[in-house]
Amino acid sequence: MSSFNSSDFKKKISESTIHRLSRYFRALESLEKKGDETVSSKELARSEKLTPAQVRKDLSFFGSFGTRGLGYPVIELKIRISHILGLDREWRIALIGVGNIGSALVSYKEFSRQGFKIVKLFDNDQRKIGSNHKGIVVSDIKNLSTELKDAGIEMVVICVPVQDAQYLVDDVVKAGVRAILNFAPAVLKVPDGVFLRNENMSMELEYLSYALVNNHVQK
Amino acid sequence: MSSFNSSDFKKKISESTIHRLSRYFRALESLEKKGDETVSSKELARSEKLTPAQVRKDLSFFGSFGTRGLGYPVIELKIRISHILGLDREWRIALIGVGNIGSALVSYKEFSRQGFKIVKLFDNDQRKIGSNHKGIVVSDIKNLSTELKDAGIEMVVICVPVQDAQYLVDDVVKAGVRAILNFAPAVLKVPDGVFLRNENMSMELEYLSYALVNNHVQK
Repeated sequence: MSSFNSSDFKKKISESTIHRLSRYFRALESLEKKGDETVSSKELARSEKLTPAQVRKDLSFFGSFGTRGLGYPVIELKIRISHILGLDREWRIALIGVGNIGSALVSYKEFSRQGFKIVKLFDNDQRKIGSNHKGIVVSDIKNLSTELKDAGIEMVVICVPVQDAQYLVDDVVKAGVRAILNFAPAVLKVPDGVFLRNENMSMELEYLSYALVNNHVQK
Repeated sequence: MSSFNSSDFKKKISESTIHRLSRYFRALESLEKKGDETVSSKELARSEKLTPAQVRKDLSFFGSFGTRGLGYPVIELKIRISHILGLDREWRIALIGVGNIGSALVSYKEFSRQGFKIVKLFDNDQRKIGSNHKGIVVSDIKNLSTELKDAGIEMVVICVPVQDAQYLVDDVVKAGVRAILNFAPAVLKVPDGVFLRNENMSMELEYLSYALVNNHVQK
Protein backbone atom coordinates (compact mmCIF):
# COMPACT_ATOMS: atom_id res chain seq x y z
CA MET A 1 0.00 0.00 0.00
CA SER A 2 2.75 2.42 0.89
CA SER A 3 5.72 3.20 -1.30
CA PHE A 4 7.58 4.54 1.71
CA ASN A 5 11.22 3.59 1.86
CA SER A 6 12.98 4.34 5.12
CA SER A 7 16.44 5.00 3.69
CA ASP A 8 15.03 7.47 1.13
CA PHE A 9 13.18 9.11 3.96
CA LYS A 10 16.30 9.43 6.05
CA LYS A 11 18.16 11.17 3.30
CA LYS A 12 15.50 13.61 2.25
CA ILE A 13 13.71 14.73 5.38
CA SER A 14 14.64 18.20 6.61
CA GLU A 15 14.44 19.82 10.02
CA SER A 16 11.39 21.85 8.96
CA THR A 17 9.64 18.72 7.69
CA ILE A 18 10.18 16.95 11.02
CA HIS A 19 8.71 19.95 12.83
CA ARG A 20 5.73 20.00 10.46
CA LEU A 21 5.19 16.28 11.17
CA SER A 22 4.92 17.19 14.87
CA ARG A 23 2.30 19.78 13.97
CA TYR A 24 0.33 17.37 11.76
CA PHE A 25 0.46 14.82 14.57
CA ARG A 26 -1.12 17.25 17.00
CA ALA A 27 -3.74 18.37 14.45
CA LEU A 28 -4.60 14.72 13.75
CA GLU A 29 -5.00 14.00 17.48
CA SER A 30 -7.42 16.88 17.66
CA LEU A 31 -9.37 15.64 14.58
CA GLU A 32 -9.48 12.12 16.05
CA LYS A 33 -10.93 13.53 19.28
CA LYS A 34 -13.62 15.29 17.22
CA GLY A 35 -14.44 11.96 15.56
CA ASP A 36 -13.30 12.92 12.03
CA GLU A 37 -12.31 9.88 9.99
CA THR A 38 -10.59 11.59 7.06
CA VAL A 39 -8.87 14.91 6.46
CA SER A 40 -7.93 16.64 3.21
CA SER A 41 -4.58 18.31 2.56
CA LYS A 42 -6.55 21.55 2.28
CA GLU A 43 -8.01 21.24 5.80
CA LEU A 44 -4.65 20.31 7.34
CA ALA A 45 -3.05 23.20 5.47
CA ARG A 46 -5.62 25.67 6.77
CA SER A 47 -5.29 24.64 10.41
CA GLU A 48 -1.48 24.79 10.19
CA LYS A 49 -1.27 27.92 7.99
CA LEU A 50 0.58 26.06 5.24
CA THR A 51 -0.18 25.50 1.57
CA PRO A 52 -2.03 22.28 0.55
CA ALA A 53 0.89 21.56 -1.82
CA GLN A 54 3.32 21.64 1.14
CA VAL A 55 1.11 19.25 3.14
CA ARG A 56 0.82 16.86 0.18
CA LYS A 57 4.59 16.97 -0.38
CA ASP A 58 5.33 16.24 3.29
CA LEU A 59 2.82 13.39 3.47
CA SER A 60 4.00 11.88 0.18
CA PHE A 61 6.94 10.52 2.24
CA PHE A 62 4.41 8.10 3.70
CA GLY A 63 3.41 6.73 0.31
CA SER A 64 0.30 7.28 -1.70
CA PHE A 65 -2.33 6.17 0.75
CA GLY A 66 -4.37 9.38 0.66
CA THR A 67 -7.31 9.00 -1.73
CA ARG A 68 -8.03 11.87 -4.12
CA GLY A 69 -11.33 13.45 -3.15
CA LEU A 70 -11.53 11.54 0.15
CA GLY A 71 -8.35 12.72 1.82
CA TYR A 72 -6.16 10.95 4.34
CA PRO A 73 -7.44 8.48 6.95
CA VAL A 74 -6.94 10.36 10.26
CA ILE A 75 -6.05 7.48 12.57
CA GLU A 76 -3.78 5.66 10.11
CA LEU A 77 -1.87 8.84 9.27
CA LYS A 78 -1.51 9.65 12.97
CA ILE A 79 -0.09 6.19 13.67
CA ARG A 80 2.39 6.47 10.80
CA ILE A 81 3.64 9.87 11.89
CA SER A 82 3.83 8.67 15.48
CA HIS A 83 6.02 5.76 14.35
CA ILE A 84 8.34 7.97 12.27
CA LEU A 85 8.75 10.41 15.16
CA GLY A 86 9.37 7.61 17.68
CA LEU A 87 6.27 8.52 19.69
CA ASP A 88 4.97 4.95 19.84
CA ARG A 89 7.36 4.03 22.64
CA GLU A 90 8.56 5.43 25.97
CA TRP A 91 11.76 7.46 26.36
CA ARG A 92 13.63 7.67 29.66
CA ILE A 93 14.68 11.23 30.34
CA ALA A 94 16.82 13.00 32.94
CA LEU A 95 16.43 16.71 33.65
CA ILE A 96 19.38 18.71 34.99
CA GLY A 97 18.68 21.95 36.87
CA VAL A 98 15.49 22.07 38.93
CA GLY A 99 14.96 25.86 38.82
CA ASN A 100 11.90 27.72 37.54
CA ILE A 101 11.82 26.25 34.05
CA GLY A 102 13.07 22.83 35.20
CA SER A 103 10.36 22.42 37.85
CA ALA A 104 7.69 23.56 35.40
CA LEU A 105 8.83 20.94 32.89
CA VAL A 106 8.61 18.15 35.49
CA SER A 107 4.88 18.97 35.73
CA TYR A 108 4.42 19.49 31.97
CA LYS A 109 1.83 16.85 31.06
CA GLU A 110 2.50 17.00 27.32
CA PHE A 111 5.88 15.32 27.80
CA SER A 112 4.55 12.20 29.47
CA ARG A 113 1.53 12.10 27.17
CA GLN A 114 3.91 11.83 24.20
CA GLY A 115 6.03 9.12 25.87
CA PHE A 116 8.74 11.43 27.19
CA LYS A 117 9.08 10.23 30.77
CA ILE A 118 11.26 12.27 33.12
CA VAL A 119 12.64 9.67 35.55
CA LYS A 120 15.69 11.44 37.02
CA LEU A 121 16.33 14.97 38.30
CA PHE A 122 19.72 16.50 39.09
CA ASP A 123 20.84 19.71 40.76
CA ASN A 124 23.95 21.07 42.48
CA ASP A 125 22.01 23.03 45.11
CA GLN A 126 22.16 21.30 48.53
CA ARG A 127 18.71 22.69 49.38
CA LYS A 128 17.21 20.96 46.34
CA ILE A 129 19.10 17.65 46.49
CA GLY A 130 16.88 15.04 48.19
CA SER A 131 13.68 17.03 47.64
CA ASN A 132 10.78 15.41 45.85
CA HIS A 133 9.23 16.70 42.61
CA LYS A 134 6.21 14.75 41.37
CA GLY A 135 7.58 11.59 42.97
CA ILE A 136 11.16 11.99 41.74
CA VAL A 137 13.90 12.66 44.29
CA VAL A 138 16.49 15.22 43.11
CA SER A 139 19.96 13.63 42.82
CA ASP A 140 23.30 15.29 43.42
CA ILE A 141 24.91 16.37 40.15
CA LYS A 142 28.14 14.80 41.48
CA ASN A 143 26.72 11.36 40.70
CA LEU A 144 25.50 12.37 37.22
CA SER A 145 27.46 9.94 35.08
CA THR A 146 26.81 6.81 37.17
CA GLU A 147 23.14 7.55 37.69
CA LEU A 148 22.51 8.34 34.01
CA LYS A 149 23.98 4.97 33.09
CA ASP A 150 22.23 3.04 35.87
CA ALA A 151 18.84 4.54 35.02
CA GLY A 152 19.21 3.79 31.29
CA ILE A 153 18.69 7.44 30.36
CA GLU A 154 18.35 8.08 26.60
CA MET A 155 17.71 11.84 26.56
CA VAL A 156 18.75 14.69 28.81
CA VAL A 157 17.05 18.05 29.27
CA ILE A 158 19.41 20.87 30.36
CA CYS A 159 17.87 23.72 32.40
CA VAL A 160 20.97 25.16 34.07
CA PRO A 161 22.49 28.66 33.93
CA VAL A 162 24.49 29.49 30.78
CA GLN A 163 27.91 29.16 32.41
CA ASP A 164 27.25 25.57 33.57
CA ALA A 165 25.69 24.26 30.37
CA GLN A 166 28.77 23.25 28.33
CA TYR A 167 30.60 21.23 30.98
CA LEU A 168 27.39 19.44 31.96
CA VAL A 169 26.72 18.61 28.31
CA ASP A 170 30.28 17.22 28.12
CA ASP A 171 29.57 14.99 31.14
CA VAL A 172 26.26 13.85 29.68
CA VAL A 173 27.97 12.92 26.40
CA LYS A 174 30.71 11.04 28.27
CA ALA A 175 27.98 9.03 30.01
CA GLY A 176 26.86 7.83 26.58
CA VAL A 177 23.67 9.86 26.16
CA ARG A 178 23.09 10.76 22.50
CA ALA A 179 20.15 13.19 22.65
CA ILE A 180 20.16 16.51 24.51
CA LEU A 181 17.56 19.26 24.72
CA ASN A 182 19.09 22.51 25.92
CA PHE A 183 17.03 25.32 27.47
CA ALA A 184 20.08 27.43 28.44
CA PRO A 185 20.62 30.39 26.10
CA ALA A 186 24.10 29.16 25.20
CA VAL A 187 25.70 27.94 21.97
CA LEU A 188 26.86 24.43 22.94
CA LYS A 189 29.14 21.96 21.24
CA VAL A 190 28.64 18.20 20.98
CA PRO A 191 30.64 15.60 19.05
CA ASP A 192 29.33 13.95 15.86
CA GLY A 193 26.71 11.32 16.55
CA VAL A 194 25.17 13.24 19.45
CA PHE A 195 21.93 15.13 18.74
CA LEU A 196 21.60 18.53 20.37
CA ARG A 197 18.50 20.72 20.09
CA ASN A 198 18.14 24.17 21.60
CA GLU A 199 14.80 25.27 22.95
CA ASN A 200 14.63 29.02 22.64
CA MET A 201 11.35 30.16 24.14
CA SER A 202 11.94 33.69 22.84
CA MET A 203 11.91 32.48 19.25
CA GLU A 204 8.15 32.49 18.79
CA LEU A 205 7.90 35.92 20.42
CA GLU A 206 10.52 37.07 17.93
CA TYR A 207 8.35 35.68 15.14
CA LEU A 208 5.41 37.68 16.52
CA SER A 209 7.40 40.89 16.83
CA TYR A 210 8.66 40.35 13.27
CA ALA A 211 5.04 39.89 12.14
CA LEU A 212 3.82 43.03 13.91
CA VAL A 213 6.70 45.20 12.73
CA ASN A 214 6.49 44.01 9.12
CA ASN A 215 2.74 43.39 9.11
CA HIS A 216 3.66 39.98 7.78
CA VAL A 217 0.95 38.07 5.95
CA GLN A 218 0.79 34.46 7.13
CA LYS A 219 0.28 32.05 4.26
CA MET B 1 25.53 50.00 0.59
CA SER B 2 22.64 47.62 0.98
CA SER B 3 20.35 46.47 -1.81
CA PHE B 4 17.77 45.42 0.75
CA ASN B 5 14.21 46.35 -0.14
CA SER B 6 11.66 45.97 2.61
CA SER B 7 8.68 45.13 0.41
CA ASP B 8 10.62 42.37 -1.37
CA PHE B 9 11.63 41.06 1.99
CA LYS B 10 8.06 40.96 3.21
CA LYS B 11 6.94 38.91 0.26
CA LYS B 12 9.72 36.39 0.22
CA ILE B 13 10.60 35.61 3.81
CA SER B 14 9.34 32.27 5.13
CA GLU B 15 8.63 31.03 8.62
CA SER B 16 11.82 28.95 8.62
CA THR B 17 13.87 31.95 7.53
CA ILE B 18 12.50 34.05 10.39
CA HIS B 19 13.42 31.29 12.84
CA ARG B 20 16.90 31.04 11.35
CA LEU B 21 17.29 34.81 11.77
CA SER B 22 16.58 34.30 15.49
CA ARG B 23 19.31 31.68 15.59
CA TYR B 24 21.81 33.87 13.73
CA PHE B 25 20.98 36.70 16.12
CA ARG B 26 21.85 34.55 19.12
CA ALA B 27 25.02 33.23 17.46
CA LEU B 28 26.09 36.80 16.64
CA GLU B 29 25.50 37.91 20.24
CA SER B 30 27.76 35.12 21.36
CA LEU B 31 30.45 36.06 18.78
CA GLU B 32 30.23 39.71 19.85
CA LYS B 33 30.77 38.67 23.47
CA LYS B 34 33.87 36.73 22.38
CA GLY B 35 35.13 39.89 20.64
CA ASP B 36 34.95 38.54 17.06
CA GLU B 37 34.57 41.34 14.53
CA THR B 38 33.65 39.31 11.45
CA VAL B 39 32.11 35.92 10.76
CA SER B 40 32.02 33.85 7.58
CA SER B 41 28.93 32.07 6.28
CA LYS B 42 30.87 28.85 6.87
CA GLU B 43 31.37 29.55 10.58
CA LEU B 44 27.74 30.58 11.10
CA ALA B 45 26.63 27.49 9.20
CA ARG B 46 28.76 25.22 11.36
CA SER B 47 27.52 26.59 14.66
CA GLU B 48 23.89 26.36 13.50
CA LYS B 49 24.21 23.02 11.66
CA LEU B 50 23.18 24.56 8.34
CA THR B 51 24.88 24.74 4.95
CA PRO B 52 26.97 27.85 4.11
CA ALA B 53 24.75 28.27 1.00
CA GLN B 54 21.65 28.47 3.21
CA VAL B 55 23.28 31.09 5.44
CA ARG B 56 24.37 33.16 2.43
CA LYS B 57 20.89 32.92 0.93
CA ASP B 58 19.20 34.03 4.18
CA LEU B 59 21.61 36.92 4.68
CA SER B 60 21.35 38.05 1.06
CA PHE B 61 18.00 39.57 2.12
CA PHE B 62 20.09 42.14 3.93
CA GLY B 63 21.93 43.18 0.79
CA SER B 64 25.47 42.47 -0.27
CA PHE B 65 27.39 43.89 2.64
CA GLY B 66 29.31 40.70 3.43
CA THR B 67 32.79 40.86 1.86
CA ARG B 68 34.08 37.77 0.06
CA GLY B 69 37.00 36.37 2.02
CA LEU B 70 36.36 38.61 5.03
CA GLY B 71 32.84 37.59 5.96
CA TYR B 72 30.09 39.60 7.62
CA PRO B 73 30.67 42.35 10.20
CA VAL B 74 29.30 40.79 13.44
CA ILE B 75 27.86 43.89 15.11
CA GLU B 76 26.34 45.40 11.98
CA LEU B 77 24.68 42.13 11.00
CA LYS B 78 23.36 41.71 14.55
CA ILE B 79 21.86 45.21 14.49
CA ARG B 80 20.18 44.60 11.12
CA ILE B 81 18.66 41.29 12.20
CA SER B 82 17.57 42.85 15.47
CA HIS B 83 15.79 45.59 13.51
CA ILE B 84 14.05 43.16 11.13
CA LEU B 85 12.87 40.99 14.06
CA GLY B 86 11.65 44.04 16.00
CA LEU B 87 14.11 43.40 18.84
CA ASP B 88 15.37 46.98 18.93
CA ARG B 89 12.34 48.16 20.92
CA GLU B 90 10.30 47.07 23.95
CA TRP B 91 7.08 45.05 23.69
CA ARG B 92 4.41 45.15 26.41
CA ILE B 93 3.18 41.66 27.14
CA ALA B 94 0.41 40.14 29.27
CA LEU B 95 0.54 36.55 30.44
CA ILE B 96 -2.67 34.64 31.15
CA GLY B 97 -2.53 31.62 33.48
CA VAL B 98 -0.01 31.77 36.30
CA GLY B 99 0.47 27.99 36.73
CA ASN B 100 3.74 26.06 36.52
CA ILE B 101 4.75 27.17 33.04
CA GLY B 102 3.29 30.66 33.44
CA SER B 103 5.20 31.38 36.65
CA ALA B 104 8.41 30.03 35.13
CA LEU B 105 8.02 32.36 32.14
CA VAL B 106 7.59 35.40 34.40
CA SER B 107 11.11 34.66 35.70
CA TYR B 108 12.54 33.78 32.27
CA LYS B 109 15.30 36.32 31.79
CA GLU B 110 15.64 35.79 28.04
CA PHE B 111 12.28 37.47 27.44
CA SER B 112 13.17 40.77 29.06
CA ARG B 113 16.68 40.66 27.64
CA GLN B 114 15.16 40.60 24.13
CA GLY B 115 12.73 43.43 24.88
CA PHE B 116 9.73 41.23 25.69
CA LYS B 117 8.48 42.79 28.92
CA ILE B 118 5.74 40.97 30.82
CA VAL B 119 3.81 43.80 32.52
CA LYS B 120 0.45 42.15 33.30
CA LEU B 121 -0.56 38.76 34.74
CA PHE B 122 -4.05 37.26 34.78
CA ASP B 123 -5.61 34.22 36.42
CA ASN B 124 -9.08 32.99 37.39
CA ASP B 125 -7.92 31.36 40.64
CA GLN B 126 -8.94 33.43 43.69
CA ARG B 127 -5.84 32.18 45.56
CA LYS B 128 -3.60 33.61 42.85
CA ILE B 129 -5.40 36.90 42.15
CA GLY B 130 -3.68 39.71 44.07
CA SER B 131 -0.48 37.70 44.61
CA ASN B 132 2.82 39.17 43.48
CA HIS B 133 5.16 37.58 40.92
CA LYS B 134 8.41 39.44 40.31
CA GLY B 135 6.71 42.72 41.16
CA ILE B 136 3.57 42.15 39.08
CA VAL B 137 0.25 41.70 40.88
CA VAL B 138 -1.97 39.00 39.34
CA SER B 139 -5.22 40.49 37.98
CA ASP B 140 -8.63 38.85 37.86
CA ILE B 141 -9.33 37.42 34.40
CA LYS B 142 -12.79 39.06 34.67
CA ASN B 143 -11.17 42.43 33.94
CA LEU B 144 -9.09 41.09 31.03
CA SER B 145 -10.39 43.24 28.20
CA THR B 146 -10.28 46.58 30.05
CA GLU B 147 -6.88 45.95 31.60
CA LEU B 148 -5.32 44.80 28.32
CA LYS B 149 -6.43 48.05 26.69
CA ASP B 150 -5.46 50.28 29.63
CA ALA B 151 -2.00 48.75 29.85
CA GLY B 152 -1.35 49.10 26.09
CA ILE B 153 -0.65 45.38 25.71
CA GLU B 154 0.66 44.36 22.27
CA MET B 155 1.25 40.63 22.79
CA VAL B 156 -0.39 38.02 24.98
CA VAL B 157 1.07 34.74 26.21
CA ILE B 158 -1.53 32.03 26.93
CA CYS B 159 -0.61 29.42 29.59
CA VAL B 160 -4.07 28.10 30.54
CA PRO B 161 -5.55 24.59 30.38
CA VAL B 162 -6.65 23.41 26.90
CA GLN B 163 -10.38 23.86 27.55
CA ASP B 164 -9.99 27.56 28.46
CA ALA B 165 -7.63 28.54 25.64
CA GLN B 166 -10.05 29.29 22.77
CA TYR B 167 -12.48 31.55 24.61
CA LEU B 168 -9.63 33.48 26.22
CA VAL B 169 -8.02 33.95 22.82
CA ASP B 170 -11.37 35.25 21.53
CA ASP B 171 -11.46 37.79 24.39
CA VAL B 172 -7.86 38.82 23.75
CA VAL B 173 -8.63 39.38 20.05
CA LYS B 174 -11.74 41.41 20.93
CA ALA B 175 -9.54 43.61 23.12
CA GLY B 176 -7.55 44.47 19.98
CA VAL B 177 -4.37 42.45 20.64
CA ARG B 178 -2.88 41.20 17.37
CA ALA B 179 -0.12 38.84 18.53
CA ILE B 180 -0.65 35.73 20.66
CA LEU B 181 1.76 33.08 21.84
CA ASN B 182 -0.07 29.94 22.94
CA PHE B 183 1.47 27.33 25.27
CA ALA B 184 -1.75 25.28 25.61
CA PRO B 185 -1.70 22.08 23.54
CA ALA B 186 -4.80 23.18 21.63
CA VAL B 187 -5.46 24.03 17.98
CA LEU B 188 -6.79 27.59 18.23
CA LYS B 189 -8.51 29.84 15.72
CA VAL B 190 -7.92 33.55 15.23
CA PRO B 191 -9.31 35.90 12.58
CA ASP B 192 -7.20 37.22 9.69
CA GLY B 193 -4.83 39.96 10.75
CA VAL B 194 -4.11 38.37 14.15
CA PHE B 195 -0.85 36.47 14.53
CA LEU B 196 -0.97 33.27 16.54
CA ARG B 197 2.05 31.11 17.31
CA ASN B 198 1.95 27.85 19.22
CA GLU B 199 4.81 26.94 21.51
CA ASN B 200 4.99 23.18 21.68
CA MET B 201 7.74 22.25 24.10
CA SER B 202 7.47 18.60 23.07
CA MET B 203 8.45 19.44 19.50
CA GLU B 204 12.21 19.43 20.06
CA LEU B 205 11.98 16.19 22.05
CA GLU B 206 10.08 14.75 19.08
CA TYR B 207 12.92 15.87 16.84
CA LEU B 208 15.37 14.06 19.14
CA SER B 209 13.31 10.87 19.25
CA TYR B 210 13.05 11.03 15.44
CA ALA B 211 16.83 11.41 15.27
CA LEU B 212 17.52 8.49 17.63
CA VAL B 213 15.00 6.17 15.96
CA ASN B 214 16.16 6.98 12.43
CA ASN B 215 19.79 7.62 13.34
CA HIS B 216 19.33 10.86 11.50
CA VAL B 217 22.45 12.61 10.27
CA GLN B 218 22.35 16.30 11.05
CA LYS B 219 23.58 18.41 8.15
